[in-house]
Amino acid sequence: MSEKSFQDYYPESFRHCYGCGTKNAHGLHVSSFWDGDEAVATFHPKEFHLAFPGYVYGGLIASLIDCHCVGTAAAAAYKEEGRELGSLPSFRYVTGSLQVDYLKPTPLGPPIELRATVVEIKGRKTILLATVSVDNIITAKGRVVAIRMPESMKEEVKE
Amino acid sequence: MSEKSFQDYYPESFRHCYGCGTKNAHGLHVSSFWDGDEAVATFHPKEFHLAFPGYVYGGLIASLIDCHCVGTAAAAAYKEEGRELGSLPSFRYVTGSLQVDYLKPTPLGPPIELRATVVEIKGRKTILLATVSVDNIITAKGRVVAIRMPESMKEEVKE
Repeated sequence: MSEKSFQDYYPESFRHCYGCGTKNAHGLHVSSFWDGDEAVATFHPKEFHLAFPGYVYGGLIASLIDCHCVGTAAAAAYKEEGRELGSLPSFRYVTGSLQVDYLKPTPLGPPIELRATVVEIKGRKTILLATVSVDNIITAKGRVVAIRMPESMKEEVKE
Repeated sequence: MSEKSFQDYYPESFRHCYGCGTKNAHGLHVSSFWDGDEAVATFHPKEFHLAFPGYVYGGLIASLIDCHCVGTAAAAAYKEEGRELGSLPSFRYVTGSLQVDYLKPTPLGPPIELRATVVEIKGRKTILLATVSVDNIITAKGRVVAIRMPESMKEEVKE
């Protein structure tokens, strides 16, 4: 794993995301790293991130999958071009669609491990699959279609 | 619209949900009501619920759809049996799967309106479709498969 996460390389104006922005004081701070061809993130849920006593809230799981996969889509784009993360021009992705299958309740307490793999890069679209596990048991699976943000929109969100 | 939301009728042990639990001090407090055959919820995002400046975080949208639809699945089950919300035995649902299609960025600021309709009730499964809109413009669509919680699990989560 590298020292800095994918999200640490985001341009300033994209660091406010509630899910993964390093500058969002209230946010989840999802941090993703390469582990071979997979991207991995570890999340420590708070005691209030529950669906019902003892189990993790499903919306949190969806949020973690979302940010982890969108960050991975961007990192994969740099990798495909043989460029360093953070080099210019910057790649930013948004979520086109998010599918989460909840296989079993996710126990609340231990760290949550997210793993994502890129299954297809087709023009501006990147399709990714993700797993969510606790203590090595997969509790949810995700599929994300990430869309490369058009230059016009990137201009719009400049601070 | 009725005075009390679907979530106000949840049994005590199910009121801790981060998304919709009335007893979760840190939570989103999604509150759903019938509006004819549709269920409606209005959510006021905080300024930190952003994806990037000016737009709502997609994981929040997924969370809102999740809780609104699961609550609607439970309310629809009571309706189907001609019973009052909160009457016994209680119906509780969990999320089997969640699909969100992000049609366009959701502006951050105005209230977010969620609408859900039940498209099918098949045994323990209820399928729902949802829309997310701001200022009457639909920005995302959702599809949720809600699963009626088995009695064994309901016992397990008793406080």
